[in-house]
Amino acid sequence: MDNFNFYMPTRLYFGNGSVQKLARARLPEGRGLIVTGGTSTTRLGYVAKVQNALAEAGHDTIVYDKVQPNPTIEGVRECAALCRAEGISFVVGLGGGSSIDTAKAVAIMATNEGDWWDYIHGGSGGGKRIAKAGLPVIAIPTTAGTGTEADPFTVITNGEEKIGGGGEKCFPAISIVDPDFMMSVPPHLTAYQGFDAFFHAAEGYLAKSATPISEMFSLKAIELIGRSLATAVREGGNADARADVALANTLAGFVETLSSCTGEHAIEHALSAYYPSLPHGAGLIIISKAYWSRFTKPAGDRLIAIARALGRKDADKPADFIDALTDLQKRCNVHDLRLSDYGVTPADFGKIADNAADTMGGLFRVDPHPLSREDVIGILEESYR
Amino acid sequence: MDNFNFYMPTRLYFGNGSVQKLARARLPEGRGLIVTGGTSTTRLGYVAKVQNALAEAGHDTIVYDKVQPNPTIEGVRECAALCRAEGISFVVGLGGGSSIDTAKAVAIMATNEGDWWDYIHGGSGGGKRIAKAGLPVIAIPTTAGTGTEADPFTVITNGEEKIGGGGEKCFPAISIVDPDFMMSVPPHLTAYQGFDAFFHAAEGYLAKSATPISEMFSLKAIELIGRSLATAVREGGNADARADVALANTLAGFVETLSSCTGEHAIEHALSAYYPSLPHGAGLIIISKAYWSRFTKPAGDRLIAIARALGRKDADKPADFIDALTDLQKRCNVHDLRLSDYGVTPADFGKIADNAADTMGGLFRVDPHPLSREDVIGILEESYR
Repeated sequence: MDNFNFYMPTRLYFGNGSVQKLARARLPEGRGLIVTGGTSTTRLGYVAKVQNALAEAGHDTIVYDKVQPNPTIEGVRECAALCRAEGISFVVGLGGGSSIDTAKAVAIMATNEGDWWDYIHGGSGGGKRIAKAGLPVIAIPTTAGTGTEADPFTVITNGEEKIGGGGEKCFPAISIVDPDFMMSVPPHLTAYQGFDAFFHAAEGYLAKSATPISEMFSLKAIELIGRSLATAVREGGNADARADVALANTLAGFVETLSSCTGEHAIEHALSAYYPSLPHGAGLIIISKAYWSRFTKPAGDRLIAIARALGRKDADKPADFIDALTDLQKRCNVHDLRLSDYGVTPADFGKIADNAADTMGGLFRVDPHPLSREDVIGILEESYR
Repeated sequence: MDNFNFYMPTRLYFGNGSVQKLARARLPEGRGLIVTGGTSTTRLGYVAKVQNALAEAGHDTIVYDKVQPNPTIEGVRECAALCRAEGISFVVGLGGGSSIDTAKAVAIMATNEGDWWDYIHGGSGGGKRIAKAGLPVIAIPTTAGTGTEADPFTVITNGEEKIGGGGEKCFPAISIVDPDFMMSVPPHLTAYQGFDAFFHAAEGYLAKSATPISEMFSLKAIELIGRSLATAVREGGNADARADVALANTLAGFVETLSSCTGEHAIEHALSAYYPSLPHGAGLIIISKAYWSRFTKPAGDRLIAIARALGRKDADKPADFIDALTDLQKRCNVHDLRLSDYGVTPADFGKIADNAADTMGGLFRVDPHPLSREDVIGILEESYR
């Protein structure tokens, strides 16, 4: 057995109504900043629920509601300035990964010098270490996709660089995973986000960095997604399916913390950095068959195990995983997404491969065998329609 | 899906040679206190290895080596006085559960008022809340049995009361699980301790407090024990088997944190409180068949799942678990332990049942159905030879 580490210090509350845990949470005295994407979290009453629970605990809150999908460094700067100006004591990220990742970055910038991009390793980032603990972050996801509530990472976009950042100081202090907050996600986003969670779990299982503990989390997340993602897509009001997918997503966040995403994520981040209209999960779905087919030989047993976790109890060859993946994509109605619909052109594939290597090249090092620049271009070509 | 929480903030390093992680660990400046049981950890060189790694990180250490099995409140007091007198910055528990639990209690008493027993809930304990964080604790188990490196609990004996204590402030800051440190445990102790770990995992799975995450940890721990405990008992030098059992024990510690032990542990604690020569794991083994047989109806599916995790892939009835348990006990050569060999007399059964209810009565509340005083006496009678 290889040596491994485990560290995931976030205090996690899971379940319907668990937002009420905030009314009894131990937080520093003072005012909280709620960071969110705006319309839907307000319209659906989630912001009010969070504010009310925190008010019960004696905390005032102010709201920054301008986070956009693919959150930007400019957004982080604006929100961090507000956080400093208002003398905030803790930061709540309420929404999808965009809101929570912005909250994580803002909480760090409330106590550390300089600019968030100074602390990014890769691309044009400054490569500095985060010196001080940030303000406590409360993560409250309203989508089941990023797993950011159980990992210490952020993805912030700076121009055409979409780079993972963060580190141990970016673990949320508290995460509230309340499937009630996910009931209104529309079908196509439920599918994209669910596949993002699936690939966090599956890539972390494929990766050379997998550990005995991350493997448990991977297989359980994959099992829950195999069982319930298609139902959550087709019947958004199915509370059991939503809870399964919510839990799968959080377990997949543990996997990101304990193991690692692989080259598949690096390639997709480069894709959606150049084509911001391409949802990250959709990009992953589109490149997945070509990517995973590269590893049927060096990681055949892994692919079989994933196929079994997906419900193919009798899987006995790596191709069974490709079948099961295709089948899940069909059941979720995302089997015929096309890169060309998002304006992607094959002329950019070389640039995308270079961007993937430059900004998140480390992920390729945990692939079962190294993918060359030509391999990456080949994956994009095979995936292109 | 029921609501649940997850919180296990300890930083865990697993694997052969991982004691060296101490040379780079971030610890408060100053001197460390190593709390240990004495002869074997010194003779086998473990104390020196820990001291050397900490010296590399710039830390002096002093050693308290008088911890006894079933550690006592008097030992905690003596060691805490030393800790305060020497101006210690962090506490290392090196050894079995006795040493680590003493270290946890001492670390709390270095910063909090009064006596450790003031903070015990149950029996004659003072029922106070621990006010302040203790000194950081580094847990380094040299046995695979208690799981205390991954839980916030202590078991300290005060006269005839052997009561669990602790709470969130008692999580180790760092735990080093280095199977190299477990190679010299003799066969009978390997078996007793391994079954203690097994029952932490299995009781936590049986308990009404089980969660989707604790269940994963339970089944993995049970699988590892089913696969490797008998080998570790028969061939103490088998490094793979030792690593499996070491990991199983730590995973079972997570289960103690995330779920709970059940009435079986309450009964055994009362037994070994009255008969200190009875090793805790031996007591559990002796009462296990009678205890688990009480739950073949209300928790039949759970027993079947445990049997499958133990390697009985075709298990389909609760009795298969009783069979698998008996078989594992035979393979580990602990199937004919007798309470009478430890001086236990049936005349004490009523007193033992009362002590179990008085000191750890809460554990009975997570049993699948409540055991009465008569049930507990019945379990002891059935187990008696």
